[in-house]
Amino acid sequence: MVTISAKPGPSDSFTDIDGLRVGQAHDAAVRTGVTVILPDAPVAMGVDVRGGGPGTRDTDALDPTCLVDKVHGLVLSGGSVFGLAAADGVAAALSERGIGLPLGPRAVPVVPSAILFDLMNGGDKDWGTEPPYRRLGVQALDAVSVDVTEGAAGAGYGARAGGRAGGIGTASLVTDDGLMVAAIVAVNSFGAVMDGTPEHGTVDLPKLGLVGANTTIGAVATNLTLDKAACTRLAIMAQDGFARAIRPIHTPFDGDTIFAMSTGAKPLDGPLAPVMAVLGTLSADCMVRAIGKAVKAAGVTTGA
Amino acid sequence: MVTISAKPGPSDSFTDIDGLRVGQAHDAAVRTGVTVILPDAPVAMGVDVRGGGPGTRDTDALDPTCLVDKVHGLVLSGGSVFGLAAADGVAAALSERGIGLPLGPRAVPVVPSAILFDLMNGGDKDWGTEPPYRRLGVQALDAVSVDVTEGAAGAGYGARAGGRAGGIGTASLVTDDGLMVAAIVAVNSFGAVMDGTPEHGTVDLPKLGLVGANTTIGAVATNLTLDKAACTRLAIMAQDGFARAIRPIHTPFDGDTIFAMSTGAKPLDGPLAPVMAVLGTLSADCMVRAIGKAVKAAGVTTGA
Repeated sequence: MVTISAKPGPSDSFTDIDGLRVGQAHDAAVRTGVTVILPDAPVAMGVDVRGGGPGTRDTDALDPTCLVDKVHGLVLSGGSVFGLAAADGVAAALSERGIGLPLGPRAVPVVPSAILFDLMNGGDKDWGTEPPYRRLGVQALDAVSVDVTEGAAGAGYGARAGGRAGGIGTASLVTDDGLMVAAIVAVNSFGAVMDGTPEHGTVDLPKLGLVGANTTIGAVATNLTLDKAACTRLAIMAQDGFARAIRPIHTPFDGDTIFAMSTGAKPLDGPLAPVMAVLGTLSADCMVRAIGKAVKAAGVTTGA
Repeated sequence: MVTISAKPGPSDSFTDIDGLRVGQAHDAAVRTGVTVILPDAPVAMGVDVRGGGPGTRDTDALDPTCLVDKVHGLVLSGGSVFGLAAADGVAAALSERGIGLPLGPRAVPVVPSAILFDLMNGGDKDWGTEPPYRRLGVQALDAVSVDVTEGAAGAGYGARAGGRAGGIGTASLVTDDGLMVAAIVAVNSFGAVMDGTPEHGTVDLPKLGLVGANTTIGAVATNLTLDKAACTRLAIMAQDGFARAIRPIHTPFDGDTIFAMSTGAKPLDGPLAPVMAVLGTLSADCMVRAIGKAVKAAGVTTGA
């Protein structure tokens, strides 16, 4: 056996990976928000959709067989289908800054996105034909920094998890030789966040009237140079963190989706597959810790 | 919250579900084997392939968009790509019994299959152009019964798990109102079977020279009436049992694949999605227990 150990990075957050910034915005009256991840330079990205009720944007373009090899941003949003507009706002703003694929008269940013369902959380959703998400996306983009607020913030602002306060959380791990992985997650799960090992054979379900809260969405990142296909494998393995931290998970009610991105700062030195086995396992670990930090911070913020 | 409790069925095995029998055969010299699942009547089936190195047969036909709505058997086999021949033997034998789709001059059985990699386990693989798997498949089919031997048996005969003895295991769970789920699994994982909650941030890897042992394959079954799409969701959720029981899992080296089948004995009474949330969670629980039983029995059998 070879044992590889890793410890949390300096800020135990997504932005421990150089070149990644996170911006968040919320609307307290609507009880919702948006989280934007902005890379300094385009990043390779993959995605793994695992829930039965996903809401996503530009995820098909992340398929390894598709043209675009790097993307310009990522948006996690509340608001169910209306939240997909957040990425529209971000794309328009990035284009205005000249960020995007050079296709014709203006830059064309590729900004994948996933949403969570927070329409039944008690906020004022009476927005007529003007949902707040496009505006919140732009606000979150303008707020990007290396500081990531956990708990009731961004896409996790109006989140619930298994009938308690959900929220946003982040974590990072670094190995002795500088391999880094980080996670960010908005926990709004149908199931409850677990504290330790569950008792097999017992399932606690939210009452059906509370099924409105569901979907956990997030991202993992690494400094290792990965292509889209390897990022996809990383996203697949990170879902195992959801499996270990939330119960039930990946139900028909959840839109559980994880993106994975590579900044490419650290060149691959040797064969990819064994490194992926390590990196994927650590990404799941980061996700478990980020989920725990999300609900802990949300509990502190909201008193739940 | 609604709490649903389940307890193991009468034999805590796959065959607790009426209408399913399991047959196993092995070749001690080759150190490999085959496990066949034979339903009394055709079953709806779905599949979820989650490892980076799968070896499968007739899994595309299980896609909900594809024609065949019920299948006639399932084969789990050792032997890597050579093990795919086991299902050929089973299909030919079933056809001779008149089991299969009535397409022209003879019955055409649909027999999906997945294999695990046991070619580096020290057995004699010098089979020239006559690998033993077609024969082992037929032997396993002839041996079907309601008794399921665990440990070094069938597809798990030559299995290793994280450098220790792997094997085959099975488990079942039944709720108070008669909803049943069962699992069978051949554990041959790159990663180790976990005993309790892992320490996040530490990854134990088999040395690269031992990478030859990998892939965990299995099936879950239920008595509830499900179509192919619902079976697919059940297979997806059962993979979370792999995530909780084996570490690392779903690596590029693993061909981790889970089939899910429905005998349809118990009609659905109400909306499907909430029942799927329960059933999927219990299927993952069954898988965790089946994995534990597999390596425990293998340890007893082999002294490892």
